[in-house]
Amino acid sequence: MRMVDIITKKRDGFSLSPEEIRFFIQGYVSGKIPDYQASALAMAIFFRDMTDSEIAELTRAMVASGDTVDLSAIAGIKVDKHSTGGVGDTTTLVLAPLVAAVGVPVAKMSGRGLGFTGGTIDKLESIPGFSVEMTGEQFITHVNGDHIAVIGQTGDLVPADKKLYALRDVSGSIESIPLIASSIMSKKIAAGADAIVLEVTCGEGAFMKNEEDAVRLADTMVRIGKNVGRKTAAVITDMSQPLGYAIGNALEIKEAIDTLKGHGPSDLEELVFELGSRMVQFAGKAENLDDARGLLHQALEQGHALNKFKQFVENQGGDAGVVDHPERLPQAKYQFELPATDSGFVAGMNADQIGLAAMLLGAGRATKEDTINYATGIVLNKKIGDSVKKGEALLTIHSDSKQIDQVIDKLYQNITISEQARKPQLIHQIIH
Amino acid sequence: MRMVDIITKKRDGFSLSPEEIRFFIQGYVSGKIPDYQASALAMAIFFRDMTDSEIAELTRAMVASGDTVDLSAIAGIKVDKHSTGGVGDTTTLVLAPLVAAVGVPVAKMSGRGLGFTGGTIDKLESIPGFSVEMTGEQFITHVNGDHIAVIGQTGDLVPADKKLYALRDVSGSIESIPLIASSIMSKKIAAGADAIVLEVTCGEGAFMKNEEDAVRLADTMVRIGKNVGRKTAAVITDMSQPLGYAIGNALEIKEAIDTLKGHGPSDLEELVFELGSRMVQFAGKAENLDDARGLLHQALEQGHALNKFKQFVENQGGDAGVVDHPERLPQAKYQFELPATDSGFVAGMNADQIGLAAMLLGAGRATKEDTINYATGIVLNKKIGDSVKKGEALLTIHSDSKQIDQVIDKLYQNITISEQARKPQLIHQIIH
Repeated sequence: MRMVDIITKKRDGFSLSPEEIRFFIQGYVSGKIPDYQASALAMAIFFRDMTDSEIAELTRAMVASGDTVDLSAIAGIKVDKHSTGGVGDTTTLVLAPLVAAVGVPVAKMSGRGLGFTGGTIDKLESIPGFSVEMTGEQFITHVNGDHIAVIGQTGDLVPADKKLYALRDVSGSIESIPLIASSIMSKKIAAGADAIVLEVTCGEGAFMKNEEDAVRLADTMVRIGKNVGRKTAAVITDMSQPLGYAIGNALEIKEAIDTLKGHGPSDLEELVFELGSRMVQFAGKAENLDDARGLLHQALEQGHALNKFKQFVENQGGDAGVVDHPERLPQAKYQFELPATDSGFVAGMNADQIGLAAMLLGAGRATKEDTINYATGIVLNKKIGDSVKKGEALLTIHSDSKQIDQVIDKLYQNITISEQARKPQLIHQIIH
Repeated sequence: MRMVDIITKKRDGFSLSPEEIRFFIQGYVSGKIPDYQASALAMAIFFRDMTDSEIAELTRAMVASGDTVDLSAIAGIKVDKHSTGGVGDTTTLVLAPLVAAVGVPVAKMSGRGLGFTGGTIDKLESIPGFSVEMTGEQFITHVNGDHIAVIGQTGDLVPADKKLYALRDVSGSIESIPLIASSIMSKKIAAGADAIVLEVTCGEGAFMKNEEDAVRLADTMVRIGKNVGRKTAAVITDMSQPLGYAIGNALEIKEAIDTLKGHGPSDLEELVFELGSRMVQFAGKAENLDDARGLLHQALEQGHALNKFKQFVENQGGDAGVVDHPERLPQAKYQFELPATDSGFVAGMNADQIGLAAMLLGAGRATKEDTINYATGIVLNKKIGDSVKKGEALLTIHSDSKQIDQVIDKLYQNITISEQARKPQLIHQIIH
């Protein structure tokens, strides 16, 4: 088998056989196949797409390229959740204790991310004392006992994806649906998920800029799941504005606690129930979605979810007192309100750019070496569709510096006020 | 400027600017742009094509990537001829002395090729004593005095093409018309051509398998010529069977001499007049094609072309006596006739496979390190459309070995005899 023949076969519109796909992934990871052949194949795939069975085989080959996490010592069906990313994404922080409270085992392996704010681990580490350092045994003990634990990335999961993604990033083939889909799904499968609930964001603040692409990606991932024997569903959500109100690490922890107390932002709560009910059903804890939703409402209203969060924080060495005393979370030195320059309705809040403003305040990392400021960020007072009076606060900036002219400029440039505006629909479609 | 942006721009169907094309070629040759970005761009070009001005700029940038030959010391308009390659391609050996005989300066830089038979230099070196080693001054003196000289490749012409072609060859983007066209044209321009006459072969034995692709390639090259200020014309020819009768180095020299004596194969003669008359016209030696053709016929009939060939061979140290004593050319030890197994008409003679049979006899190189056997090869007795009786010789094998079972098998497999067959038309179209 020769790699050049595999490239021209795909280039000319033919499907690759399982053997050819494995030959490529194994050869690329081992270094036998050079970058210049892999980048040419990725570009050919960009143009020619892949069939369901090609994508499933690619996903399997990527999983097989490295370590996989064995969660068989954990009782029950392990359901993982993944989001293609957004701004102010507090979902996991609420969802994990909520579904754990109804008995779904949440065995989460997570990472520190590059981006507007930190990853889930960075956000949790803004709680004093919280740590994701533990042994595999401790991790399993926590999940079997309390149904929830978060551990940092261990082992070398899906090295094929690391290498291929880095290559695509510099050779112009990131935006290939089959390659994005297999990249995401291979990582979830290698991390031990039996079932997967996906949130695919779309809009200016998201990876998929329009709904058509988001649906194609979601559909492709759901079909991969079916092909590799993992129950999978996807929720397409709007990311034309940040989710919830808070953007920033400790700020999002506080928002998650508020939501677990029953008074969080309505959009965040809506999304959490949508994703959570599917996780509960996949885990076999409810017969249908209505029952699953009922269980989650009960867990929230009766305080079980909040208690689960406290227990989870304590288990991982954190100060659970932050739940009742949010002032124990890191606080920024200064708070500045951003007054509206006009009266009317908020018509646009470019999520991307508002996220970038939070990063400028120190809430996110631009490079791996950057350190995160847990305290800083932005809390919205208004969202798209809200009425606003001239001089009224659009949002509050939490900063450790008074030099925030650049942040203020960016925010004003990316928030538009007009005479009329409608609230965008958060959940566009469910793909399953 | 970032290479990844150039790749995605082309990938998404936009035209590259002259600056972007120069950035790519200069960066790639200097090593600043890695292979994996160049192969991804080549694949994107395969799918998205290029505009005329992009292709012209690419050609100019490739020419500028290395040395160029200065032929300004040679009087007159230098017209070069290029063929995209075929089997039994004796054309240059006849054409060069023929047009030189009517005053067209033939300043040919040529190479040793990989392929079924050798390149033009290999064929000429089958004449005892013939050498292409000479100084640039000697070369110019010969062309100014006798209008003809052939020199081996000197200097580092179009290093961008060497590097890019080798990369495309292993990364699946050889078959891109704009990349093939700029590759060919950049080499001709760097070698000092003022005007270019192209033979674009099509059929099983050629690089372009069908006429549509051949026309697209020819058309693209002619438009490059116009864009960079070089008169250019292209003749689309049939390569469903070998050209002429001889396939092999010394065998083709003998066929060239026969043709210069006025009794060569009719297809070879037809092609030589078609290409030659355009060269004569481009060189300004005739006002129109009819006059040009008339001059060439005269040169052939009156023996000027044959004398020019003798002079040329002598100038380069060769034994001009081979013209009258072809037995002084290398002779193979054995000759075997291949009898027809059926009566009828020759319906197919796969040029590709018959060329490969000649290579198996030693007439060509499979790798750069192989040495050529000048004496061996194949001489056809029949061509497509000819009637044949069972037992009559289809061709004669010239071999230095008696172990030719593999060659015989290959030949029988690729020559078909049927009840009816028409002679293919050699010249399909002229593009100018």
